[in-house]
Amino acid sequence: MEGVSTRLSQLFVRTLREDPSDAEVSSHRLLVRAGYIRRQAPGIFSWLPLGLKVRRKIETVIREEMAAAGAQEVLFPALLPREPYEATGRWEEYGDGIFRLKDRKGADYLLAPTHEEVFTLLVKDLYNSYKDLPLSIYQIQDKYRDEARPRAGLLRGREFSMKDAYSFDYTDAGLDASYQAQRDAYERIFTRLGLEYVIVQADAGAMGGSRSEEFLHPTPIGEDTFVRSAGGYAANVEAFTTLVPVRDVDIATLPPAKVLPSPGTPTIQTLVDLANAEYPKPDGAWTAADTLKNVVLALTHVDGTREIVVVGLPGDRDVDMKRAEVAFAPAEVEAATEADFEKNPLIVKGYIGPWSALGPFLGEESATGIRYLLDPRVVDGTDWITGANEDEKHVFGLVAGRDFFGDGWVEVAAVRAGDPAPDGSGPVELARGMEIGHVFQLGRKYAEALDLKVLDENGKLVTVTMGSYGIGVTRILAAIAETTADDKGLLWPAEIAPFDVHVIAAGRDEAAFELAEKLVAQLEAAGKDVLYDDRPKLGPGVKFNDAELLGVPKIVIVGRGAAEGVVELWDRRSGERGDVPVAEALSALS
Amino acid sequence: MEGVSTRLSQLFVRTLREDPSDAEVSSHRLLVRAGYIRRQAPGIFSWLPLGLKVRRKIETVIREEMAAAGAQEVLFPALLPREPYEATGRWEEYGDGIFRLKDRKGADYLLAPTHEEVFTLLVKDLYNSYKDLPLSIYQIQDKYRDEARPRAGLLRGREFSMKDAYSFDYTDAGLDASYQAQRDAYERIFTRLGLEYVIVQADAGAMGGSRSEEFLHPTPIGEDTFVRSAGGYAANVEAFTTLVPVRDVDIATLPPAKVLPSPGTPTIQTLVDLANAEYPKPDGAWTAADTLKNVVLALTHVDGTREIVVVGLPGDRDVDMKRAEVAFAPAEVEAATEADFEKNPLIVKGYIGPWSALGPFLGEESATGIRYLLDPRVVDGTDWITGANEDEKHVFGLVAGRDFFGDGWVEVAAVRAGDPAPDGSGPVELARGMEIGHVFQLGRKYAEALDLKVLDENGKLVTVTMGSYGIGVTRILAAIAETTADDKGLLWPAEIAPFDVHVIAAGRDEAAFELAEKLVAQLEAAGKDVLYDDRPKLGPGVKFNDAELLGVPKIVIVGRGAAEGVVELWDRRSGERGDVPVAEALSALS
Repeated sequence: MEGVSTRLSQLFVRTLREDPSDAEVSSHRLLVRAGYIRRQAPGIFSWLPLGLKVRRKIETVIREEMAAAGAQEVLFPALLPREPYEATGRWEEYGDGIFRLKDRKGADYLLAPTHEEVFTLLVKDLYNSYKDLPLSIYQIQDKYRDEARPRAGLLRGREFSMKDAYSFDYTDAGLDASYQAQRDAYERIFTRLGLEYVIVQADAGAMGGSRSEEFLHPTPIGEDTFVRSAGGYAANVEAFTTLVPVRDVDIATLPPAKVLPSPGTPTIQTLVDLANAEYPKPDGAWTAADTLKNVVLALTHVDGTREIVVVGLPGDRDVDMKRAEVAFAPAEVEAATEADFEKNPLIVKGYIGPWSALGPFLGEESATGIRYLLDPRVVDGTDWITGANEDEKHVFGLVAGRDFFGDGWVEVAAVRAGDPAPDGSGPVELARGMEIGHVFQLGRKYAEALDLKVLDENGKLVTVTMGSYGIGVTRILAAIAETTADDKGLLWPAEIAPFDVHVIAAGRDEAAFELAEKLVAQLEAAGKDVLYDDRPKLGPGVKFNDAELLGVPKIVIVGRGAAEGVVELWDRRSGERGDVPVAEALSALS
Repeated sequence: MEGVSTRLSQLFVRTLREDPSDAEVSSHRLLVRAGYIRRQAPGIFSWLPLGLKVRRKIETVIREEMAAAGAQEVLFPALLPREPYEATGRWEEYGDGIFRLKDRKGADYLLAPTHEEVFTLLVKDLYNSYKDLPLSIYQIQDKYRDEARPRAGLLRGREFSMKDAYSFDYTDAGLDASYQAQRDAYERIFTRLGLEYVIVQADAGAMGGSRSEEFLHPTPIGEDTFVRSAGGYAANVEAFTTLVPVRDVDIATLPPAKVLPSPGTPTIQTLVDLANAEYPKPDGAWTAADTLKNVVLALTHVDGTREIVVVGLPGDRDVDMKRAEVAFAPAEVEAATEADFEKNPLIVKGYIGPWSALGPFLGEESATGIRYLLDPRVVDGTDWITGANEDEKHVFGLVAGRDFFGDGWVEVAAVRAGDPAPDGSGPVELARGMEIGHVFQLGRKYAEALDLKVLDENGKLVTVTMGSYGIGVTRILAAIAETTADDKGLLWPAEIAPFDVHVIAAGRDEAAFELAEKLVAQLEAAGKDVLYDDRPKLGPGVKFNDAELLGVPKIVIVGRGAAEGVVELWDRRSGERGDVPVAEALSALS
C-alpha cells in the first residue's frame, strides 16, 4: 500500500519554545509544545492532527488485540438516562464524581463514567440462552468524570477516551476464561506499545465484584502506590491485606490489665515516654508498637447519614485515608471533626480505649451505637497499652480476645516497606505507578441488579456473571509520551509514531529540496508515511529542533550533500547521525 | 490484504421478526430488526457490531474525500465551557435546543451542538499570519442537541455523529475557493455513497453568515420542503425569496379608498363572499388574492422580551411558521395568543388593517410600538380589500405606497407550487427532502466575535473569514438504509455493506458446511470480508430471511449441490439466483 506524505508547511501545527504554564508533567508540556494537543478546559483537551494520528494508532493496536481475544466492537452513547444507574445504586454512589444534567423535559441524564449498566441491559435485550455465551464486547469511547482535581494533562482528565470491554458468561469457569483472555490481550497491548507494566491485585472499589487486577505503569508521577515482594506478590496499597500474625499464647496465663494514671499523654509519643519513665517494660523499652491507637472516623453514607466509627490499630501505624476510602466504600470517610467529638462526649479524646472493654462503655457498646473496628494485627492474645476512656488514664496489658473485642476487622492501616506479603512471599517494597489498565470480575452484581438471566443446559434460568476491562486510551498515550520522551522532546515508539520518517530539507539549496522531494516520493511508494519539512525559509537549526520536539524516531536530513546524492540518517533515539548515499537511506528506511 | 470472516453463530446480533413499536420510518424499523442499532433513550442509540461496521465505512469515505479536499483531521471535546458560546451569543440563542450542565464547582458547560467557536479559538491560538492560510480542518465527532421531538430513529437524534469542517481564509476569494472545495467533496461523498441529492440555497439561520447551501436527499419522509424550477433554481422553502411583481400604475389615477360596512366577516372567506354580494368587482369576482390579510405574531427575543408584530400578506397565502422562524431568528415566533389580543385592545381581531393607514392608528404607528411588516408582493400601487381597524368594517381599494406603508418587508408567506423562482428560471415545484449536508460561508461573524485576525502581506491585521461544512454521519447511514431497503430488509451499497459476501451453509448436510468453510477461507484469502452463517440447527428458510434482512448485497448459498461442488449465487438486489460451480462463484465474487 502507498504511504502518505504530509508537508510540514501545510500541517496544522505550531511548535512552542516555552512550556505551557499549567503543565505539571513532561508529557503534558511536550504534547502541548509539539502541537499535539491543546487544553480546552480543566481536564478537557482538543486533539490536533499529530496527536490524533498517535491516538488512532494506539486504538488500532487495541482493536487488533481485542479481535484476537474474540471481543466484538460496539458503541454506546455518552449521554445516558439515569434509570439504569439508579437500579445499580451508582447514580448516588458516584457522588460529585460524575456530570449530571437534565433534558428539556426535566428527565435526568448523566455523562457515563463507565458503561456496565447499559452493556448489561443490551445483552439482556438480545440474548436469553447459555448458547449465546460466552460473549465479550467492547467499545472505544469518550468517558466523563467530574474529577475534583484534574491534573497532569491527559493523565487525569474529565473527558477521556477509554476502551471498555465487558464479558458475559453463565459459569464461574467461563468468567475465569473470559477474564484471562482480556488479561492476556492487555499484556500483548502494553508489550506492543512498549509500555512497562506491573499487574497488581486491586480493590474493585465502587465497581463491586471479586477478582480485580490493575495494570500499573511504574513511574514516579503515578498517583497509585503499590507494593511488591521479591516472591512475586504485587498489589495496589488499597488492596493490600495484612498477613495476620500468629499469637500462640494461653490467654488465661496473661496478667490482668491495670488502669494507671497517665497525665498529659494525649499522643502516642507522650504515652510511650511516660510509660518508659513510670511503668518500665520488664524486658526492654515500650515502643509505639506496644500501644493500641484508637482513631475516630466519620463516614458519610450514600443516603447522607453520618456515622462515627472507632478504629483500633497498633500505635506505630497511621490510618491511610485512601485505604480507608476503599474499606468503607461507598461511604465517604474523613477524620472526625470537633463537632463530632462534641456530639459524642463519651469519646475521651487522647484517652480513647476499646469500646467493649473498659470505662464508661463497658458492656454498653450497643447502647453507644458506635462501631469499633480492629486492624487485623490486633489478634486474640495480643496485649496493649491503650486509653482507658477516662481523662489522663491508660490501661496496660489489655488483652484482645479476653478484655476486648471488635465489632469487625478493617484494613485502614498504612502499608510500610518491609511488611510481609499476605501470600507469604516475603517483605514488600513500595513504588509509585500509574493505572493504565484494569481487569475486574464483576460477578453477578450487575446482572442481579438488572435481572440478566439466561436459560442453562437444563432449561433453568441462571444469572449471568460478568467481567469489566478498561484501558485509558488517552492516558496511555500520555504515559508513553512521558516514559519515552527525553530532554529534547517527544520520542515515539515506531508502532505509534505519527509518521514513519521525518525528512528535513535543510538549508536553502535548491538541490536539497529537489532530492528531498524525490526521497519523499520514493518513501511513499515504499508504503511509508512521511512528514516532510519543506519550509523554505527556515534555517536547519530550527528544523532540527522541531524534529527533536515532534518525536518521529527516524529522521533524514537532506542538506549539503544533496548535490552528491548523499543524505544524513539521524536516529532520534540514539542521537547517531551519519552520511549515506540516498539509495542506502531508502533501503534502510523501507 | 487478507479479508476477515465472521461467524454468524458468534456475532453479537439478534434479528427480530416484529417491528419495534416506536419506529416511524423503515430505516429505523429495519436497523433495529436487523440488529444494527438499539434505542437507549429518545434520540439516543447504541451501535451493535453490524451498525458500527457500516458507520465506520461511511466515515472512511468521508475521511478520504476530506483528505482529497486538503482538510486535516482534528478532534474536539463534546463537553465545552460556556464562555466561547457566550462571546458569540449562541449560549442564549440556542434556547432549549442544547444540553447545558454545571461541573462540581458550578461552572457552566454545554454539550456542543456544533464547534465554530472552539475551532476559531484554536486557529487563533496557533496561527497569526496570512501565510498560514488557507486552512481547512475537520473532525468526525458526536454532537448533542436537545431536540423537542427526536424522531425517525437516527434521522433526528439527540446524540449523533457529524463530520464538521471549518475553513479559514483572509480574503473573500479564498473563502470562495475553500467553500467550493468542500462543496465538491460533498458531491463526491454522496456520489460514492449512492445517495441522491439536490443542492439547494438555504438560510444560514442561527449560524449567521452569507452563502449557504444544503444538500437535500429527496424523500417523502424528509423534514425539509424545498422548491426547484425546471431552469435550475433550487432552494429550501425557508430560503426561498419572492420574485417581486412589477406594478406599473400611476398611483395618483387610482380611485380613493372607501371604508364600507362588513358585518360578520372575520375571515377571508366570509369577507370575499360579502364583497361579491354587496360590493361586486367591476371586472369579475373578488377572490382571496384581492384581500390583504393581517396576521398578528408574537416574538420571544433572546433576552426574553415578547414583541407583537403584524404582518400583511395577500389573503390567499398563509403564514409558513418555518419561514417565519427563519425570518425572525434568533427570536422565537408563534401566533399571538388571546392574552396578547387582550393586552392590545386596539388590534381589532378579524378586522385588522395596516397600521400606518387607517383607523385609530392613523399616523400614530410609532406610538403603538407595534411593527407592521409586509409581504414582498404588497408592492407600491397594489390595491387591497383589508380591515379598517374597526369592528365589522373593511376598506376597499386601499393602495400600498399611497394609503399605507410597512415598517419593513418580511418573507413568511407559504411558498406554493407554481410560484416563480426568484432568478427568473420559471415556476417552482415543491418536494420533500432530508438534509444530509450543509455548506456555509460564515464570513467574519465568528472571527470578529472571537477576535481572530492575521497579518496580511502588508503587515496589517485583517479579520479572518470562515466557512462551516457539516455532514450528519449517522443520519446519512439512516438515509442510505431508508432509500436502498426493500420490503425484505436492508440492502446496502457494496462500498458500505458490513461485509462483502454473506455465505450461507444451508441444510444439515456435512458436505455443505465443509464446502462453505472452504469457500469462506478462499474468499478471505482473496481479501473479502465474509459473514458466514454457520448456525448448525437452523433451516434454510430462517437463514434466507436473515440474509435478506441483514442486507449484504452478495450472497452465496452452499446447500444441496455441495457434494457436487455447486453453490448458488444470489444477488440480493435483483433477487436473481443461479447455480454455479464453486470456482466460478469464487471468481465472480473476487
